[in-house]
Amino acid sequence: MWIPEPLRNLIEAFKTLPGIGGRSAYRMVFHLLKDKDRMKALEMALKEAQESLRFCSVCHGITDTDPCPICEDPQRDKGLLCVVESPQDVFFIEKSGLFNGRYFVLGGVLSPVNGIGPDDLNINHLLERVREEKPKEVILALSPTVEGDATSYFIAEKLSDFPVKITRIARGIPTGAELSLSDAVTLREAFQGRSEI
Amino acid sequence: MWIPEPLRNLIEAFKTLPGIGGRSAYRMVFHLLKDKDRMKALEMALKEAQESLRFCSVCHGITDTDPCPICEDPQRDKGLLCVVESPQDVFFIEKSGLFNGRYFVLGGVLSPVNGIGPDDLNINHLLERVREEKPKEVILALSPTVEGDATSYFIAEKLSDFPVKITRIARGIPTGAELSLSDAVTLREAFQGRSEI
Repeated sequence: MWIPEPLRNLIEAFKTLPGIGGRSAYRMVFHLLKDKDRMKALEMALKEAQESLRFCSVCHGITDTDPCPICEDPQRDKGLLCVVESPQDVFFIEKSGLFNGRYFVLGGVLSPVNGIGPDDLNINHLLERVREEKPKEVILALSPTVEGDATSYFIAEKLSDFPVKITRIARGIPTGAELSLSDAVTLREAFQGRSEI
Repeated sequence: MWIPEPLRNLIEAFKTLPGIGGRSAYRMVFHLLKDKDRMKALEMALKEAQESLRFCSVCHGITDTDPCPICEDPQRDKGLLCVVESPQDVFFIEKSGLFNGRYFVLGGVLSPVNGIGPDDLNINHLLERVREEKPKEVILALSPTVEGDATSYFIAEKLSDFPVKITRIARGIPTGAELSLSDAVTLREAFQGRSEI
């Protein structure tokens, strides 16, 4: 079947995006073909993002100025350092507005299966930062998966010689969820983490 | 909440795509940020598409050469002209491999509600083509919606003075669907369109 090469290429490029199959890619491409201004805007936004987005040399978050505004902000509590897996976690927590400390992005979690060891993450830089900045508390906010937990324990072990409190965000039943729909592990963690009311 | 401007712009550009909300746009953008080659490939595919894709001057389909290979193909039956609503319909029918005639893209359907009248579509060009090429049959393959049907009747009326057979693709119960789940209009059309077996 004939299809113009540039059209095929564009559909293929969209198909590499997460959650986008052939049908959605097709729909997106024809949507853009109807409105070339929008197509140009997307092209320019991609170009600009490649040119100006980089990793912050302090926290490894994504930024267009280095260090990023969060690391530079004198209003933020230097005593609190929140460790997250990826740059989007920073924006996710920022959106909630409930944390006023600073961040450190690991760039992943330990995963022997996928060949990701401590040297593939920013763990050494984290230790350096803790040594130099001497925060009062390091909050580990990694995903509660097997890999995330292993990474949290690994970091806690590495930081055990530093005079710093190490905490992990709570796990339990998500607010609004039905108790009977939660899994056994979560339920156990909810019981273990119970608090007085 | 702070978010780098180029990142915000890119998320906004993705959000204009059909079916893409804030969460999906976010996910796509961070997926691309992890792999800048892929991001560059998407940018280049968009650039190339804008530069080289255009409408075929004969059938109004999307092409990178004018006339398009389908219109230029001497193997295709010039006696059959299939009228469709949009360029993607051409590729959709081509993919099925069951039509060997040529196409004509209307560029939409009549829709008084949305202010789309005959002059907004390629109807005059269709009449011209029928006058000049004298196909034996014009197959109307518009969507079976109120607007699509109105457009089919309008074209059939306009073509009634030409020595050409005008047909419309069949409607009925889609193969594989449950009879009891079809709507009353479709069921009536399936009865009306019944054929001997």
